[in-house]
Amino acid sequence: MSNNKQVIVLGSGLVGSLLSIILTKHGYKVSVYERRLDMRKEAISAGRSINLALSHRGWGGLRIAGIEDEIKKVAIPMHGRVMHAIDGKISYQPYGKEGEYINSVSRGGLNCELMTLAEQHGVEINFNKRAVHVDLKNNIVFFEDESGYKSQASADLIFGSDGAYSAARLQLQLTDRYNYSQSYLEHGYKELTINAGANQTFKLEKNALHIWPRGGYMLIALPNLDGSFTCTLFFPHQGKPSFESLTNKAEVQNFFTSMFPDAVALMPNLVNDFFSNPTGSLITVKCAPWTFENKLMLIGDAAHAIVPFFGQGMNCGFEDCAVLHNLITKHNHQWNLIMAEFEKLRKPAADGIAELAVQNFIEMRDLVGKPEFLLRKKIEAAFSQKFPRLWKPLYSMVTFSDIPYHQALAEGKRQDAIMEKIMALPLIETNWDSDDVINKMHALCIANNDTIVL
Amino acid sequence: MSNNKQVIVLGSGLVGSLLSIILTKHGYKVSVYERRLDMRKEAISAGRSINLALSHRGWGGLRIAGIEDEIKKVAIPMHGRVMHAIDGKISYQPYGKEGEYINSVSRGGLNCELMTLAEQHGVEINFNKRAVHVDLKNNIVFFEDESGYKSQASADLIFGSDGAYSAARLQLQLTDRYNYSQSYLEHGYKELTINAGANQTFKLEKNALHIWPRGGYMLIALPNLDGSFTCTLFFPHQGKPSFESLTNKAEVQNFFTSMFPDAVALMPNLVNDFFSNPTGSLITVKCAPWTFENKLMLIGDAAHAIVPFFGQGMNCGFEDCAVLHNLITKHNHQWNLIMAEFEKLRKPAADGIAELAVQNFIEMRDLVGKPEFLLRKKIEAAFSQKFPRLWKPLYSMVTFSDIPYHQALAEGKRQDAIMEKIMALPLIETNWDSDDVINKMHALCIANNDTIVL
Repeated sequence: MSNNKQVIVLGSGLVGSLLSIILTKHGYKVSVYERRLDMRKEAISAGRSINLALSHRGWGGLRIAGIEDEIKKVAIPMHGRVMHAIDGKISYQPYGKEGEYINSVSRGGLNCELMTLAEQHGVEINFNKRAVHVDLKNNIVFFEDESGYKSQASADLIFGSDGAYSAARLQLQLTDRYNYSQSYLEHGYKELTINAGANQTFKLEKNALHIWPRGGYMLIALPNLDGSFTCTLFFPHQGKPSFESLTNKAEVQNFFTSMFPDAVALMPNLVNDFFSNPTGSLITVKCAPWTFENKLMLIGDAAHAIVPFFGQGMNCGFEDCAVLHNLITKHNHQWNLIMAEFEKLRKPAADGIAELAVQNFIEMRDLVGKPEFLLRKKIEAAFSQKFPRLWKPLYSMVTFSDIPYHQALAEGKRQDAIMEKIMALPLIETNWDSDDVINKMHALCIANNDTIVL
Repeated sequence: MSNNKQVIVLGSGLVGSLLSIILTKHGYKVSVYERRLDMRKEAISAGRSINLALSHRGWGGLRIAGIEDEIKKVAIPMHGRVMHAIDGKISYQPYGKEGEYINSVSRGGLNCELMTLAEQHGVEINFNKRAVHVDLKNNIVFFEDESGYKSQASADLIFGSDGAYSAARLQLQLTDRYNYSQSYLEHGYKELTINAGANQTFKLEKNALHIWPRGGYMLIALPNLDGSFTCTLFFPHQGKPSFESLTNKAEVQNFFTSMFPDAVALMPNLVNDFFSNPTGSLITVKCAPWTFENKLMLIGDAAHAIVPFFGQGMNCGFEDCAVLHNLITKHNHQWNLIMAEFEKLRKPAADGIAELAVQNFIEMRDLVGKPEFLLRKKIEAAFSQKFPRLWKPLYSMVTFSDIPYHQALAEGKRQDAIMEKIMALPLIETNWDSDDVINKMHALCIANNDTIVL
C-alpha cells in the first residue's frame, strides 16, 4: 500500500506533536495546525496543568519518537505519595516496587521538545490556525486566525488530536447516530505555587507527589526542576467550602491556614495567585465512533478526555500513538483496517481509564488519609511481592504495566472483593503479615477461576 | 412583576406551538421561529412519525390551550394492544381499566391546529428561519433561510423548543461545565402503510395498537381516520436481519412474508415504501442545565429527547408546558424562580421517562409475545382493581396518571421484585386468581414500608 498520503494533524499539543513524528517516520507528509501561537516564541499558557506525571505507557510513546533519554534528563522521579495530615503529621506510601516511580515533567517543556523534534522530522506546524469547521465528506478543514483571517487545507487523512474541546469531534457529533457525552465533576481546580528555597533547594521532599487529603477536596504538589512545586487545589465549584464561597483575601488566607497549615507557610503568593489564576473545570468525554469513513480519526483527549486523578491523560494519549504506530506496520498502511482495529482496541481501554480516573479522585482526596487504606495497600504490596503472578496492585497495573486499562479496572474490582474479606479478619492491624493472612488471601485468589494472567 | 416581556420561541412543533399559546395567555408577546416552511401550505414532512399516542399528560396541556374537545373529535381511542404472533394467532391486552385508553392522533394535523390557534392568540410564526447561532450573552438569535438569507432577532426570553437536534442546546453545550449526552439505539425505524379497505373501513381492529413482536425487533401499527394504519418497523440498523441486510425487493418481500405474514397481506406497497421511505434513528438526549442566566430555557425534546416506545415524547413535552404554566402563575413572572423550579421538577422526571422508554422497547418487541408476561399483567390488573391504593401497574402510572415519571420508574422496580416472587409460586398459571396468591401479594406489598401513595 502507498504511504505517500497527505496528512493533517489538528493540534500541536503533546499527542498531536508525537503523532506527527510517528506518522512522518512511516513516510507520511504531515501538516499540523495549531490554534495557539508558537509557545516556543510567545509567553502563552501551555493549556491545562503546568506539570504532569509521566509513567510507563508514556515512555513507550517517547521511545518510538526517540526522545526517551532526553526527557529522562529533565524528569523528576516521584517514588511515592507523601500525605500531609491537618496536624502536620506526614505519612508515606511508595507507588510500586523498588525502582518503580512516576516522573514529574513540565508540560510546556515536553511539548516544546516534541514540536521541535517534529519540525526536525520535516513536519510543518502552522500556528494561529483555529479549526472552525471540518468538511467531513471532502476532508477539508477551515481555519480562522486571531485577526479573523480565514484559510483552509485538505488532505487524504485528518487526525483530530485537538484535545478535550476538539473541533473535529464537534463536527462528528452532528453526524447521524453519533454517540457522545461530556460530563463535568462538581470540583474544579486551581494552580498555586510553593516557592523554591535558596539555591533552588526543595522545601518539601523532592522525589514524591505531595497530597493534602481533606475528604471532600485536596491539595497536591509536584516538584519542578527549579526547586519550586506546582500545587493544585481540587475543590468544589459551589457549596461550603468552595471556589464560590471564598470571596476575599482574608477568607482564602484563613481557609488555607486552618486546612493546609504546613503548605501555606511555603506559599507567600497564595492569596494573589488564588485570585489571579483561573479556576479550571474537570471534564470527561466519551464518544463513538472515533472515525469517519476511514479518512478522519480522533486520538488522545479529543477521543477520550479524562479527569487527571490517575495521572494518565498524557500517558493514555501516548499509548494511543504507540498502538497506532504498531497498527500502521501491521496493516501496511491500509487505513480501513488500521482505524477499525485502533478503535476496537482503544475504546474499551479509554472507557476503563475514564472510570479509574474518577475513582482515584476519591482515593486521593479521602482514602489516602486513612490508616485502614494505608494498611490495605501495605498488605497488597507484601502479597504481590510474594505472589507476583497472583496479585499486581491496581495502581501498578495502571501505572507500571501495559495491561489494558479496562482489564486493570476489572481486576481491581476482583481485588476489592478479596480485600474486603481480608480487612474484615480479626486483629488484621497486627496480624497483617502473618502466614494466616497470607494463606487466606492466597486461597481467595485461587478460588477465583477468572484470575487474569499478569 | 411585569409580564410585557418579548419572547422568542424556537420551533413551531407540537411543544413550541403549545408553549407559545400558553405564554400568550400569560400576557407575553411571542414570536415563533421555525426552520421548516408552513406545513399548512406546503406538502412537507411533519418531522418524525406520522401518528402519535396521545394520553393523560398530553391532554392536560391541550386543556390549558382550550382545544382538548376539538382534538378529541379527531383522535382514535386505542383501548389495548393486539399482539400478532408469527402463526397468525392474536392476543389482546387492555391498556388499563375500563374507560382508560390512549389515542391515535395525526402529528401533522395536531401541529397545524396548534399553529393556527397560536396565530389566533396573536403569536407571530416566522417560517423558513433556521437558527444557526444563539448569542447567549445578548439574547440574539441568528437565522438563515433556505436561500441563505440571514436575519436576526432578540428578545427578553428565549425558549428552545427546537427538538432533539436543538440549535439552542448546541450553543449551551459549548458553555463551561455543561453536561450533555446523546446516545442512539442500535435499532432504527421505517414507516410503512396498511391501506384502508373499501369506504375507509379498517382492515384490522380499529381501536387498538397492533404489535408484531419478534424478539429482537417489531412492527407496530396505529389507526388513522381514513381507515389506514401507519406501521412502523423498529429494526436493527446492522446485523442479520437488519436494514443493511435487506438489499433488494425480493429480500424485503420474503422477509416480511415469513415474519409478518398477516400484515404483509394488507401492505400492497410494502416493497416500494420500504425503499423510498427514509430510515430514522432513535436518539436519547440528556443535558443539564436547561437554562442560561434566567434568559434562555430548553423545553420538550430539546431538553430531553427520548425513544418512542412508551408513547410519551409529546405527552412529556405537553406536561412540561403545563408545569411551566403553573409556575408562571405561582412565581408571578419571576423567571429566576420559574426556571429554577421548572428544572428541579422536570429534570428527574425527564431522566425517568428516558429510562422507561428504553425499557419498554424490550417489553414491546419481546415480552408482549410471551404467555408469562400476559399472565403477569393479568395478575397485576386483578390485584390493582382489588387494591388500587396498593398497586397501580407501571403502564398506568406512566400513561393514565400525573405521578412523576421518576416515581413511576422507582415504583415499577419495586413491583418487579414482588412479581418475580409471585410468578415463581407453584402452579401460578392456574392459581393466579386464587385467594392464596392475592394474600401473598398483599403481604409482599405491605411488608414493603416505602410503598408510594398512589
